[in-house]
Amino acid sequence: MAKTTPEDVAEMGRSARKRRAIIDAARTVFLRKGYGGASMDEIAALAAVSKQTIYKQFADKRRLFTDIIVDTIDQAEESSEAMIQALPDSQDIEKDLRQFARRHVATILQPHLVQMRRILISEAERFPDLARTWYENGPERGAATLAELFKELARRGHLRLDDPLLAAQHFNWLVLSIPLNKAMFRRSDEHFSRRELEHYADEGVRVFLAAYGTS
Amino acid sequence: MAKTTPEDVAEMGRSARKRRAIIDAARTVFLRKGYGGASMDEIAALAAVSKQTIYKQFADKRRLFTDIIVDTIDQAEESSEAMIQALPDSQDIEKDLRQFARRHVATILQPHLVQMRRILISEAERFPDLARTWYENGPERGAATLAELFKELARRGHLRLDDPLLAAQHFNWLVLSIPLNKAMFRRSDEHFSRRELEHYADEGVRVFLAAYGTS
Repeated sequence: MAKTTPEDVAEMGRSARKRRAIIDAARTVFLRKGYGGASMDEIAALAAVSKQTIYKQFADKRRLFTDIIVDTIDQAEESSEAMIQALPDSQDIEKDLRQFARRHVATILQPHLVQMRRILISEAERFPDLARTWYENGPERGAATLAELFKELARRGHLRLDDPLLAAQHFNWLVLSIPLNKAMFRRSDEHFSRRELEHYADEGVRVFLAAYGTS
Repeated sequence: MAKTTPEDVAEMGRSARKRRAIIDAARTVFLRKGYGGASMDEIAALAAVSKQTIYKQFADKRRLFTDIIVDTIDQAEESSEAMIQALPDSQDIEKDLRQFARRHVATILQPHLVQMRRILISEAERFPDLARTWYENGPERGAATLAELFKELARRGHLRLDDPLLAAQHFNWLVLSIPLNKAMFRRSDEHFSRRELEHYADEGVRVFLAAYGTS
């Protein structure tokens, strides 16, 4: 294998920076114009790179948007990952689920995620692959992760359930549905107060535990 | 007051028929093209009337779409209205709520309603008035009606709740969220089986009654 020279390292750094600049610019343009309305010219101008540079790294607009979907979901999931890991050791399941629910609703209701969701719903008819990428990597994977957690919580006697995936979906929508559905039908510059979101999270957990709790 | 002549009656009949033809054509075009993409020319051609006739009855495209939103929601609500009226006299609240939930999810998951919902979510940023009209006449009014019903059920000892509106929203989303959110991210020609929808309805009612039931 050829030795990596300082020039190679510098080149990799430049390339990574350009990639990041393109992703950030593309996200901005897609969020503003939707998938159909976004142009590669505009993305290139905002990222201050040539269109050729974009095509070299991402092949086409669809590939670029797919990478942005995955990148956006990964960033959102990072914030809940640590919390999910800690939950099986919970000494107070109600308190800890409530804390998790509050974090969850605050994450998912972030304006850029609401807008991304809106765009994928808009384009689901014309570009079903993109919507599927979002759904599978986002809601579906999220529910599967939560189902595993709930299975473990049931094993430790904190929950009582037959169908962990259904329980995970119930939890998810009890916590998110009211504000998320309202958000879908209004402009993205109208926000919920932190207190409102916490109220929905707490009440969602209350209903969830009435059905799936053991105490 | 002038006497209504047979000619007047014939004219009103023609006018009502034209109005219905325009609404049906417009719904078809809006569902296919979205609000922004639909053209009055196309609607006029499909309804077999002149553009002038449309403008005489509906003033402009926004007014026409608003009337379609209200008309679509009214039609959807008719199917659950009778059921809601009968619920307070229920002798078996679990069975009757389950039947109502099954009807509710089957109504809301109808392809044209899913598609209408998708269009309004798509356009909420550019045309917030339209999305608000949908939200207020649909989900919001629906939840208020259900809240009144739940208050009455609580008064009769069938439910136990502090916040009827929150209980109504929980019921609504427990029953609808899983299939409705999935539907948002796929093409409108992919359908759920009746059995799947019934399963979600039944399980939603189970969770709801664990939190809000009295037995």
